[in-house]
Amino acid sequence: MKLAGIHFAARITAGRNHTMATAKLWTDAEVEANPRVRAVFDDIRATRKSDFVNNFWRALANQPALLERTWASIKSVMIEPGTLDPLTKELIYIAVSTVNSCAYCVHSHTAAARAKGLTDDQHGEFLAVVAMASETNALATALQIPVDAEFAVQ
Amino acid sequence: MKLAGIHFAARITAGRNHTMATAKLWTDAEVEANPRVRAVFDDIRATRKSDFVNNFWRALANQPALLERTWASIKSVMIEPGTLDPLTKELIYIAVSTVNSCAYCVHSHTAAARAKGLTDDQHGEFLAVVAMASETNALATALQIPVDAEFAVQ
Amino acid sequence: MKLAGIHFAARITAGRNHTMATAKLWTDAEVEANPRVRAVFDDIRATRKSDFVNNFWRALANQPALLERTWASIKSVMIEPGTLDPLTKELIYIAVSTVNSCAYCVHSHTAAARAKGLTDDQHGEFLAVVAMASETNALATALQIPVDAEFAVQ
Amino acid sequence: MKLAGIHFAARITAGRNHTMATAKLWTDAEVEANPRVRAVFDDIRATRKSDFVNNFWRALANQPALLERTWASIKSVMIEPGTLDPLTKELIYIAVSTVNSCAYCVHSHTAAARAKGLTDDQHGEFLAVVAMASETNALATALQIPVDAEFAVQ
Amino acid sequence: MKLAGIHFAARITAGRNHTMATAKLWTDAEVEANPRVRAVFDDIRATRKSDFVNNFWRALANQPALLERTWASIKSVMIEPGTLDPLTKELIYIAVSTVNSCAYCVHSHTAAARAKGLTDDQHGEFLAVVAMASETNALATALQIPVDAEFAVQ
Amino acid sequence: MKLAGIHFAARITAGRNHTMATAKLWTDAEVEANPRVRAVFDDIRATRKSDFVNNFWRALANQPALLERTWASIKSVMIEPGTLDPLTKELIYIAVSTVNSCAYCVHSHTAAARAKGLTDDQHGEFLAVVAMASETNALATALQIPVDAEFAVQ
Repeated sequence: MKLAGIHFAARITAGRNHTMATAKLWTDAEVEANPRVRAVFDDIRATRKSDFVNNFWRALANQPALLERTWASIKSVMIEPGTLDPLTKELIYIAVSTVNSCAYCVHSHTAAARAKGLTDDQHGEFLAVVAMASETNALATALQIPVDAEFAVQ
Repeated sequence: MKLAGIHFAARITAGRNHTMATAKLWTDAEVEANPRVRAVFDDIRATRKSDFVNNFWRALANQPALLERTWASIKSVMIEPGTLDPLTKELIYIAVSTVNSCAYCVHSHTAAARAKGLTDDQHGEFLAVVAMASETNALATALQIPVDAEFAVQ
Repeated sequence: MKLAGIHFAARITAGRNHTMATAKLWTDAEVEANPRVRAVFDDIRATRKSDFVNNFWRALANQPALLERTWASIKSVMIEPGTLDPLTKELIYIAVSTVNSCAYCVHSHTAAARAKGLTDDQHGEFLAVVAMASETNALATALQIPVDAEFAVQ
Repeated sequence: MKLAGIHFAARITAGRNHTMATAKLWTDAEVEANPRVRAVFDDIRATRKSDFVNNFWRALANQPALLERTWASIKSVMIEPGTLDPLTKELIYIAVSTVNSCAYCVHSHTAAARAKGLTDDQHGEFLAVVAMASETNALATALQIPVDAEFAVQ
Repeated sequence: MKLAGIHFAARITAGRNHTMATAKLWTDAEVEANPRVRAVFDDIRATRKSDFVNNFWRALANQPALLERTWASIKSVMIEPGTLDPLTKELIYIAVSTVNSCAYCVHSHTAAARAKGLTDDQHGEFLAVVAMASETNALATALQIPVDAEFAVQ
Repeated sequence: MKLAGIHFAARITAGRNHTMATAKLWTDAEVEANPRVRAVFDDIRATRKSDFVNNFWRALANQPALLERTWASIKSVMIEPGTLDPLTKELIYIAVSTVNSCAYCVHSHTAAARAKGLTDDQHGEFLAVVAMASETNALATALQIPVDAEFAVQ
């Protein structure tokens, strides 16, 4: 509609901005050249048995200490066997990511949940619980309901 | 420390304010006197096989239509059998309530999860996943990481 | 700047990712083929007196029970006449959606508000209230101000 | 009251902690002694035609510049006549405060709304809209629904 | 995969929607024609010693009173010298914007922080603190830990 | 006002509930009896050069693995020297905790910041930045402002 001017330019360039991170995403070549980062990427690939390393790790690569600590935590919390099954953990992860409005995390963990066998019916029930909880959270907060003594830890 | 003045009064009365809701909490006698509200309370007691009705419903009683619709949804989403087990649903509920910082809901649904068999080990793993997700949500948002094409729905 | 490699690919494909949902969006043909979903879509079109059905419902179509319950609630809460006028309800809806950082909902309900007569001046005052509330919320929380006894429900 | 141990002491004192702010709440005597703070308090009392000044302003009194700017904004946004009526503004304020989980603001603005005539029926409808919006926000975010082109500003 | 139909159209147009604001973005020509808006833009350019005026102000231009008040506050809070250095203020700003999931603000203030000298190491430490705080916030809320009396303001 | 009945009981007991956590808070005696937990508590006391161990760690003690990992991260992120000074880190921590509405974390880290020298003037400027950011976050989200191309990482 408009052929020139800052307004038009802004909107055109904005079309590109959703590919912008606030830090560089590391290429495989850049990863190869940094032994500390490469060691984490090698472990991600070996642990997941896949060559694909998603953008989250490519952005964290700018901060090797943070990269190492975050991957160590993810491995310990999400991958090591425990008392909650892996799919349940992914659903909890998506629930948190949804309320925090983290588009990246909703996408990556919904994909992970599907890879771990999430069915459409389970996804539907998950969505219903997240919606129901959001609704009653709003009601309880707007009404400032006092906690019942019956809920005390024994 | 202080014997008089508004400051002191404010702090004393504030000690009471956490028992304040922004609407009246209905007593059993008040519930008895309102057939529409009573019908919901009767169904809550029958469904849960318990005489205890927590404050959430006593606050919603001010709004019979909202009370009816909310209880119908809770019953359908949380109580009717489906493909997710009841404990998993409670964990998703607590995860949402935690991120929404709803103290009432965290308390009531942690109590509900324990009643459904949540062990300390499971609670610990749940907490670890919620903490991990919160951490990576913050990182992904601060870094504005673009979603990988590999996460697209097939 | 780069002609090949995962980094470049990731950023190109990311350009597409904002059209990705985490579930399929149903086409009209798919809706036609499912009587349960079709019944809801027919009611949406009849109620709104418009052929346009927005993506929200096309995504919920994957979960017929959730679709039915959500549409029934929206119809009851937002469309049935009550004591708050329709435009006021839309403003409350946008306020909630803004704080929850739900881009989809901010867009859809701002469009709905304009369709119901929201003027630029009203939008400006709405924005000022939302901004003011966000500011004082942050101050009250950072200062952990105790609630005054004077605010108790009579 | 107690015989020994940090744990027990902590829990007893915690019963008091909800009267703690993270900054001093100014008494009337302290306000009197500071001309800059006193001028704002005088204007609050004159504008509201009431001697009661709530804790929010008593906490901001520690920061005279912030106190002045915040009161000036509140006066301009919430009190000066405009195109939205005062009750509608309060409902938007409570909606924002609810999603931000600001207990103080939910209490103070629900009290303000009642003072401006909010009826129980209106409060019920308000709660229903806030709950509905929270629910659909969660669904739209969990599903990452792409915005329809039809919602574009004309 | 699909050549026609609403589904396809929706997804194509959605590719454009991330350039959509919910209000018009003012061009330089439009700004020139409105003395009140122009005065703010002139002051932004003079204060920042740059011709570039970002989209935030072009959207606020629809509401001159809000534009004036917001710019006056930004100038007072972020630009006037005080006891916190400008880079620290930007880091606080990005932290708030991250938790509020405001993509625009994360981008604009990360760019501003870099312009004020933020190094990659500082950015990494900032990210680590934001992630750590998010994690412990979730733990403290899920555990509903009572505040220690030792934290009371002296 | 009322001498008996569930309503009254609920409100009385609610007065106690703010001392309730959703898990046991460990006493010093309980910590002594568990070598794994005791090792962490010993390190907290040695690192901080203080006998006081706050409730956060007493609640995490129920989950030794989570306790160890969280303390290790806190020590690395908040205590080890880096490029951001300790007070700046605390301010970022409080900013995150405020937006997440974590009362416990706001209290504990405001106390920590004061212990590290935070002055009233600095606190006032910090509050002003957090309030300003919250306000503009709301405006940018409600307006869905597209990111300027100028903010791209170089």
